[in-house]
Amino acid sequence: MRATTIHAPRDIRVSEVDDPRVELPTDAVVKVVAGCICGSDLWPYRGENDVVPGSTIGHECVGVVEEVGDEVRSFRPGDFVVVPFDHCDGTCPHCLAGAHSACVNLGMTTSGQAEYARVTQADGSLVATDGMPDESMIPSLLALADVMPTGWHAAVAAGVREGGTVVVVGDGAVGLCGVLAAATMGAEKVVAMSRHEPRQAIARAFGATHVVAERGKEGAAAVKEITQGVGADAVLECVGTDQAMGTAFAVARPGSTVGFVGVPHGVELPVRRMFQKNVGLAGGMAPVRRYLPELLELVTSGRIDPGRVFDSTVALDDVAEGYRQMDQREAIKVLVRP
Amino acid sequence: MRATTIHAPRDIRVSEVDDPRVELPTDAVVKVVAGCICGSDLWPYRGENDVVPGSTIGHECVGVVEEVGDEVRSFRPGDFVVVPFDHCDGTCPHCLAGAHSACVNLGMTTSGQAEYARVTQADGSLVATDGMPDESMIPSLLALADVMPTGWHAAVAAGVREGGTVVVVGDGAVGLCGVLAAATMGAEKVVAMSRHEPRQAIARAFGATHVVAERGKEGAAAVKEITQGVGADAVLECVGTDQAMGTAFAVARPGSTVGFVGVPHGVELPVRRMFQKNVGLAGGMAPVRRYLPELLELVTSGRIDPGRVFDSTVALDDVAEGYRQMDQREAIKVLVRP
Repeated sequence: MRATTIHAPRDIRVSEVDDPRVELPTDAVVKVVAGCICGSDLWPYRGENDVVPGSTIGHECVGVVEEVGDEVRSFRPGDFVVVPFDHCDGTCPHCLAGAHSACVNLGMTTSGQAEYARVTQADGSLVATDGMPDESMIPSLLALADVMPTGWHAAVAAGVREGGTVVVVGDGAVGLCGVLAAATMGAEKVVAMSRHEPRQAIARAFGATHVVAERGKEGAAAVKEITQGVGADAVLECVGTDQAMGTAFAVARPGSTVGFVGVPHGVELPVRRMFQKNVGLAGGMAPVRRYLPELLELVTSGRIDPGRVFDSTVALDDVAEGYRQMDQREAIKVLVRP
Repeated sequence: MRATTIHAPRDIRVSEVDDPRVELPTDAVVKVVAGCICGSDLWPYRGENDVVPGSTIGHECVGVVEEVGDEVRSFRPGDFVVVPFDHCDGTCPHCLAGAHSACVNLGMTTSGQAEYARVTQADGSLVATDGMPDESMIPSLLALADVMPTGWHAAVAAGVREGGTVVVVGDGAVGLCGVLAAATMGAEKVVAMSRHEPRQAIARAFGATHVVAERGKEGAAAVKEITQGVGADAVLECVGTDQAMGTAFAVARPGSTVGFVGVPHGVELPVRRMFQKNVGLAGGMAPVRRYLPELLELVTSGRIDPGRVFDSTVALDDVAEGYRQMDQREAIKVLVRP
């Protein structure tokens, strides 16, 4: 099949690789209808993570089940499914406790920007739609593979409550989905920290009541003003850098929690400040499957449209151009059509 | 008055200092009936915190109100009171949200090992007993000034629930109170990590169902066995060192929270592990006043007896001996009688 592969920093290609196949009886193979590029794909693209030359890249997709293993009970060829980037069995103690991203049989989608993807633990991982979705629903369904549940997880981890004030640090697709999550959960004030006009517009469409364009100390001061000097009831850290984490703790009110979902790179947590202010930290890799039933219902009922984060679409053959757009911040998030 | 003063590491004296007095109309002065030495007093004693030569030391006491300022409404001379080490107004946004230890009018007891102590924000801070308590109740009431609410805070921050498995890292007085808190909250398994026999005995008396004497990797392995490989539902970190924090994260199950109350010294939080395992961190300086009504009721009804952590009593004149006992781990916690 044709799949996106990475060979070195900034060297993205479309290569012919072996078709994924059912290797274990709990596997399924999905024919990809749409995949996309994740902010975390930019870490190896920018040389900030190691690259295994020639390896496939891309962990987000939706598609149609092509083949299932002998032990897969809940899905069959032809089903349209959302594929969580993190595969889980749904039956281990961690899954039963809602920590699906620490499943003892954890797996990952490894060829989401490709023609086919293998899904381990298909029964525990996949969620099917009622019949084939309308083409217009594809972006929002695709957003359920990672970016929307990740923003949702930040909001859950931060303890967002109805009527509260929430600050979202990061205006990437995850941050924007964090805004959407906080607004959907009933937060009264949702402050998006963003200085990019197109992203500010989506943040407002997703329910942001305030936009703070300043960064660092000035940004924190602006949030303090919005919160009458108190700080935010919940903060979503959706970047993963030390600067973003610093801003998150600077705007969090005493006793609140920073929910973090950006893969940490070079982050040093301010443990003394956390102690003195009683500001907690929770989150991590999103347990996507845990949230999918609720989020799928929100999407199919039209209550949320996270697919708006896709502002560019490329054919698989042009995937390198999609990486370039995201790297240059010309696109928020790029959808890839095999 | 006579008060404990510190002049250099290991140089503890009893000195004649000015009597505390009502400086603001919201102040009270308390005649100390009993004070005590805190594990955190050992940081300057051991030279790990800076010392201001000649400054008073000691932040825990109970006693009788001697004098109140003009604006103090709820207390009058003669009342027996528990004095939270952290004073708070009870009316600011942080107090109203339960984050009393971040009160905008935060104050601290500064002469708990002395004849008198000044309490700022008396109305918001103090809690009185019904009449003069029996002499036998003094240790448990004194424990409410800091050590018991601090252990309780660790349990609250860690999200201890009925039926859960809780690990307590640290067998100092706070850790032992954490065991008592977890057991009182209904945890089914309470694992005390302790290798000191007298402390193990108190831990068991406080409700520990398991004692793990091993440390580091062996200790974590022992906890894994107790929890059938899953890890603890909640972990209380009651030390403040990097090693203790490392152990706490090593035994926490995915999706759980480490509640921390040991003042961090040299702690580097394992942010990647926290992310990968979705293990959160919450806690900090205890909002003592928040818990006092509930804890006072538990003490006066005889349901808990946190005063058992005091295994040594010294007269104020012998306070240096008390520091020596705690430093040498000859005593768990030393009560000081002015």
